[in-house]
Amino acid sequence: MVGIAVLGAGRIGKIHATNVASNKSARLIAVADPYASAAQSLAGALGADAMTDCEAAIDRNDVQAIVIGTPTHTHISLMLRAVRQGKAVLCEKPIDLDMAKSLEAVEEVERLNGRVMLAFNRRFESTFAAMRAAIDAGEVGEVRQVIITSRDPGLAPEDYIRHSGGIFRDMTIHDLDIGRWLLGEEPVELTAMGSRLVDPALMEKYDDYDTAMVQMKTASGKQCHINNCRNAVYGYDQRIEVFGSKGMLLQDNLRPTTLRRWTQDATDAREPLLNFFLERYQQAYKAELDAFIEALAQNKPLPTTVQDGLKALRLADCAVESVNTGRAIRV
Amino acid sequence: MVGIAVLGAGRIGKIHATNVASNKSARLIAVADPYASAAQSLAGALGADAMTDCEAAIDRNDVQAIVIGTPTHTHISLMLRAVRQGKAVLCEKPIDLDMAKSLEAVEEVERLNGRVMLAFNRRFESTFAAMRAAIDAGEVGEVRQVIITSRDPGLAPEDYIRHSGGIFRDMTIHDLDIGRWLLGEEPVELTAMGSRLVDPALMEKYDDYDTAMVQMKTASGKQCHINNCRNAVYGYDQRIEVFGSKGMLLQDNLRPTTLRRWTQDATDAREPLLNFFLERYQQAYKAELDAFIEALAQNKPLPTTVQDGLKALRLADCAVESVNTGRAIRV
Amino acid sequence: MVGIAVLGAGRIGKIHATNVASNKSARLIAVADPYASAAQSLAGALGADAMTDCEAAIDRNDVQAIVIGTPTHTHISLMLRAVRQGKAVLCEKPIDLDMAKSLEAVEEVERLNGRVMLAFNRRFESTFAAMRAAIDAGEVGEVRQVIITSRDPGLAPEDYIRHSGGIFRDMTIHDLDIGRWLLGEEPVELTAMGSRLVDPALMEKYDDYDTAMVQMKTASGKQCHINNCRNAVYGYDQRIEVFGSKGMLLQDNLRPTTLRRWTQDATDAREPLLNFFLERYQQAYKAELDAFIEALAQNKPLPTTVQDGLKALRLADCAVESVNTGRAIRV
Amino acid sequence: MVGIAVLGAGRIGKIHATNVASNKSARLIAVADPYASAAQSLAGALGADAMTDCEAAIDRNDVQAIVIGTPTHTHISLMLRAVRQGKAVLCEKPIDLDMAKSLEAVEEVERLNGRVMLAFNRRFESTFAAMRAAIDAGEVGEVRQVIITSRDPGLAPEDYIRHSGGIFRDMTIHDLDIGRWLLGEEPVELTAMGSRLVDPALMEKYDDYDTAMVQMKTASGKQCHINNCRNAVYGYDQRIEVFGSKGMLLQDNLRPTTLRRWTQDATDAREPLLNFFLERYQQAYKAELDAFIEALAQNKPLPTTVQDGLKALRLADCAVESVNTGRAIRV
Repeated sequence: MVGIAVLGAGRIGKIHATNVASNKSARLIAVADPYASAAQSLAGALGADAMTDCEAAIDRNDVQAIVIGTPTHTHISLMLRAVRQGKAVLCEKPIDLDMAKSLEAVEEVERLNGRVMLAFNRRFESTFAAMRAAIDAGEVGEVRQVIITSRDPGLAPEDYIRHSGGIFRDMTIHDLDIGRWLLGEEPVELTAMGSRLVDPALMEKYDDYDTAMVQMKTASGKQCHINNCRNAVYGYDQRIEVFGSKGMLLQDNLRPTTLRRWTQDATDAREPLLNFFLERYQQAYKAELDAFIEALAQNKPLPTTVQDGLKALRLADCAVESVNTGRAIRV
Repeated sequence: MVGIAVLGAGRIGKIHATNVASNKSARLIAVADPYASAAQSLAGALGADAMTDCEAAIDRNDVQAIVIGTPTHTHISLMLRAVRQGKAVLCEKPIDLDMAKSLEAVEEVERLNGRVMLAFNRRFESTFAAMRAAIDAGEVGEVRQVIITSRDPGLAPEDYIRHSGGIFRDMTIHDLDIGRWLLGEEPVELTAMGSRLVDPALMEKYDDYDTAMVQMKTASGKQCHINNCRNAVYGYDQRIEVFGSKGMLLQDNLRPTTLRRWTQDATDAREPLLNFFLERYQQAYKAELDAFIEALAQNKPLPTTVQDGLKALRLADCAVESVNTGRAIRV
Repeated sequence: MVGIAVLGAGRIGKIHATNVASNKSARLIAVADPYASAAQSLAGALGADAMTDCEAAIDRNDVQAIVIGTPTHTHISLMLRAVRQGKAVLCEKPIDLDMAKSLEAVEEVERLNGRVMLAFNRRFESTFAAMRAAIDAGEVGEVRQVIITSRDPGLAPEDYIRHSGGIFRDMTIHDLDIGRWLLGEEPVELTAMGSRLVDPALMEKYDDYDTAMVQMKTASGKQCHINNCRNAVYGYDQRIEVFGSKGMLLQDNLRPTTLRRWTQDATDAREPLLNFFLERYQQAYKAELDAFIEALAQNKPLPTTVQDGLKALRLADCAVESVNTGRAIRV
Repeated sequence: MVGIAVLGAGRIGKIHATNVASNKSARLIAVADPYASAAQSLAGALGADAMTDCEAAIDRNDVQAIVIGTPTHTHISLMLRAVRQGKAVLCEKPIDLDMAKSLEAVEEVERLNGRVMLAFNRRFESTFAAMRAAIDAGEVGEVRQVIITSRDPGLAPEDYIRHSGGIFRDMTIHDLDIGRWLLGEEPVELTAMGSRLVDPALMEKYDDYDTAMVQMKTASGKQCHINNCRNAVYGYDQRIEVFGSKGMLLQDNLRPTTLRRWTQDATDAREPLLNFFLERYQQAYKAELDAFIEALAQNKPLPTTVQDGLKALRLADCAVESVNTGRAIRV
C-alpha cells in the first residue's frame, strides 16, 4: 500500500486524486492546495486529509509518494523536496519553462538517485500504447516517418497564453515527446514554422503563434512531422500515423458514440470529437497513475523520467530558435 | 467479330449499345426501336443502322447476337424469334411477369438449345464479383447468413408502378437473384412482409407495397434477409453482408468521390450516394456485356441463363403469396 | 442515500455490486449468494455485508432496493418478496422462461403497485441511447425499418444451452426488446426462422437453433429484422440500423482501440471486436444502475417495467411458434 | 473538331491518345514516336496515322493541337515548334529539369502568346477537384494547413532514378503543385528534409533521397506539409487534408472494390490500394484531356499554364537547396 499525497486541487489534481483513490495498491493520504476550499472539497469527497501547505504534505510520514499538479513554476522546488526525503514523484509537465533551471533540477534529481516520473500521459493511452507495442512487435518493420496531428478545440484564455511559454512549449511539447517515443531514436535536427491565423493580435502581443509545423530527423534519417493549431472547430484533433518499411499504423480520434448519420446532405457522418484533453485522455491519466503505482509497488524502473522532460523541452527550444532564425537547428 | 443488334433505344438500350460499340470483339450492326427518332439518334451516334422493326433486326444476316432492352411484355416473342434462328440473346430481366408464360418460354428455349443470357447485371459488378470470388476461395468458410439492403432513391412514376408487377417482381427480384447466387444453394422456404409507408394511397391503388422484407432459407439451413424501400433520401442504397463460419464480407455503397467533411456539427461525413442504378452499376453493365460477348467469341457457357430468370421470378411469386397468406411458402 | 442489496454474486452480480458501490446516491448494504465464498469475496472487496440467504437480505431494514442477479427460476419469488415489502427492484431478464408464470407475476406486481425495473441494459448504452434520442428529435423522420445484427462470439457451454429456453428466449429476446423500443410501436405480426449451422448435434439434442432470423411488423407497417448467430469468429457483433423517411442511423461495434493497420495484404484493418457483453456493455450496466437509483432517489417512474419483460417474452414465444408452424404469428 | 497529334507512344502517350480518340470534339490525327513499332501499334488501334518524326507531326496542316508525352529533354523544343506555328500544346511535366532553360522557354512561349497547358493531371481528379471546389465554396473558411501524403508503391528502376533529377523534381514536384493550388497563395518560404531509408546505396550513388519531408508557408502564414517515400508496401498512397477556420476536408485513397473483410484476426479490412498513378489517376488523365480540348473548342483560357510548371520547379529547386544548406529558403 503506497501512501500518496496529491499537490494541487485544480482540474488535473482532481483527476489524479480520483485515480489514486480507485487504485487498489495505493491510499490517498492527503490533498494539498493553498486554496483551502479546493483542497477541502476534493479531499472530502475522497476521504483524504485536506491541507493548504504542500511542503507539509510532502513531509508527512505516512506519505511515500507525491503527485505534483501545481502551477509550473512550483514544480522544481516541490519535486526536489520530495526527492531529498527519498519519496517518489509523479510530476506534471514541464519540469520548468526555463531550460537552465530544468537542467539543474534534473542533475540534482539524478545526483540523489531520485525517483521522478514525468507525466507524459499520452504514452499510456490505449491506442498510443498499442501503436508502440505494434512497432516493438515489428509490425511496420523499420519506422520511416511519424506524422502527428494535434489541434486544440479552442484558443486558451489570454491568461493562459500569457504564461504558457509559447505554443512550442505548451502544446507542441507533448507531440515532441510522442515523436521521440515513436521514432525510437533521438531527433538530431529540427525545423519549425509558426503562423498567426486564429487570433493574430493576441499572438502578436505575446510574441506567440497559434498555428505551427515542425519537422525533425534522427541520425539514421527517420523523420517526424508535427502540425498544431490552437483552434479546430470540429473538436480536439489527435491523430497519429506511423509509416514503416512493412506497413503503416493509423490512430483515429475518439467520439462519444459510434453513431453514423445518413441524410439527404451527407452519409456516414460521425459526431464531433470529444472536446478536450480531460475527456480524450481520461483513460490515459488512469493508466499513467496505475503504471506509476505499479512501478513503486513492484520496485520497477519508472516508465518515464526527468530526462524525457528535459529532452522534450530541448526540442521545444530548438523549435523556437528555428522559427526565430529560419534555420534547421542541430539538437 | 460478333455482329450485334440492340433492340430498344431507351436508357437501358443506350447503355448496352454504347458498351457493344466499345467492345473490341463485337460490332454494333443495328439499333431497333419503334420510336424512329430514338433509334436514329442512338444508332447515328454509334455508327450503326437505325431500324424501327425489331423483328427485321433479328433477321439480318450480319447479326449473330441480340440484346433485348425493350418493354417486358415483348421479351418472350423477341427472344424466341432469335433463338429459332440460332442467334444468341442477352435479355433484360424479367423473362415475363407471368410465371406460366415464362415457364413455357424457358422450355422452348431449352428444347431448341437456345443460348439466352438473362441480364443479372449486379453479378458482374466488381465488388459483387469479388464477394462471390472470396466465398469461392473459402474466405468466410461456410456461408450462414446473407443480408441484402436495397433501397431506391425515390418512388418511380405512377406509370411505372402500374405495370411493374409489384415491388417483389420489379425490385426484390434483383436481390432474390443475388441472394440465391451468394447462398450458393436454392432457397426452399420464404416469408415476406409488405408495408405502405412512402405513398400509401398510390400503393393501395395498385395493390402494391413500397417497403418490404423477405427472409428465406435453403435446405441446409443457410439464411437470407432482404430489405427494400422505394425511397431513401440519402440515395440508392445497395449494401450486402455475407456472414460465414470463418468471417464476414461487407460491401459498401459508391459515392462520387472519397471526400470526407469535418465541421462543427459532424466529422467524417461523406457525400450522398450515387443516385441510381445507371450510375451505380455503370461498370457492371459493361462487364456483363463483355462477359456475354466473351462467352460467344470463345464458345463458352453463358454466365447466366433463363433458368436463373425463372428461379428469381418463382421466388418473387412466393413473396407475393407469403404476403397474401401470412405463411412461410415452400418454394 | 438508497440502501441496496445485490442478490447473486456471479459475473452479473459482480458488475451490479461494483456499480452500486461507485454510485454516490446509493450504499451497497449486502451481497447475498448461497455460495458463501462468492458472496464473501465480492462483499469484502466492496465493504458490504456478505450473506447466504437472499430472502434475509431482502428483509433487512437498511435495504430499500434489491438488485436481482440470481438464476432465472428464482426471479419471481425474490421479486415478489421485495415488492410485498414495498422495496424497489432491478431484476435481470427474463422474469421467467414460462409465459403463464411471468404473466401471473406481473399481475401481482401491478396489483401491489410494485416498483420493478427489468434490466434491459442495452437501452442505456450510449450509442443506443443516442439513437433513440435522435429518433425522438425527428432526425430520421418516420421510422420505416429497423435492422438488428446480434451475434455471439462463441457457443455457450452445453450447461447453459440446456437451461436457456432456446435461442429466441435467451438471445433474440434482447433484440426483440430493442426492436420494440426503436420502432416506438408494438409489433403485431412476427415470423421466425431457425437453423442448426454451428453445432447441429448439440442443437438437435436440445431442440434448439444456433442461427436465427426474425422479421416483425407494427400495426402501422413499420418493419424490423433481427439476425442472430451463436458464433462469430470476429467477436461479439452488435450493430443496429434505423431507416426512416428523412435518413438513417447506423451503430457500429466497439473495439479496444482506434488503431488501423496497413500492410501488403490489407489496408485500414481494425482490431477484432470487444469479446462479449460484459466488456461491450460495461458502460451500459453502469448507466442502467445509475438510472435505477436516480429514479428511486428522485421518485421518478422507472425507465423500464415488468411489462417490457412480458412483451419481449411474448415476442420470443411467437418466434418459437412461428418456427414450429411455418406461419406468421399475430402477436 | 480539333485535330490532334500525340507525340510519344509510351505508357503516358497511350493514355493520352486513347482519351483523345474517345473525346467527341477532337480527332486523333497522328501518333508520332521514333520507335516505329510503338507508333504503329498505338496509331493502328485508334485509327490514326503512325509517324516516326515528331516535328513532321507538329507541322501537319490537319493538326491544330499537340499532346507531348516524349522524354523530358525534348519537351522545350517540341513545345516551341508548336507554339511558333500557333498550335496549342498539352505538355507533360516538367518543362525541363533545368531552371534556366525552363525560364527561357516560358518567356518565349509568353512572348509568342503561346497556348501551352502543363499536364498537372491531379488537379482534374474528381476528389481533388471536389476539394478545390469545396474550398472555393467557403466550406472550410480560411485555409490554415494543407497536409499532403504521397508515397510510391515501389522504388523506380535505377535507369529512371539516374535521369529523374532527384526526388524533389520527379516526385515532390506534383505535391508542390497541389500544395500551391490548394493553399490558393504562393509559398514564400520552404524547408526540406531528405533521407535514405529504402535503398541507401542507390540513393548515395545518385546523390538522391528516397524519403522526404517539406514544409512551406505563404506570405499570410498558411502552411503546407508534404511527405514522400519511394516505397510503400500497401500501395500507391495519395491522401490530402485541408484544414481551415471552419472545418476540414480529407481525401482518401482508391481501392478496386468497396469490400471489407472480417476475420478472427482483423475487422473492417480493406483491399490494398490501386497500384500506381496510371490506375489511380486514370479518370484524372481523361478529365485533363477533356478540359484541354474544351478550352480549345470554346476558346477559353487553359486551366494550367507554363507558369505553373515554372513555379512548381522553383519550389523543387528550393527543396534541394534547403536540404543542401540546412536552411529555410525564401522562394
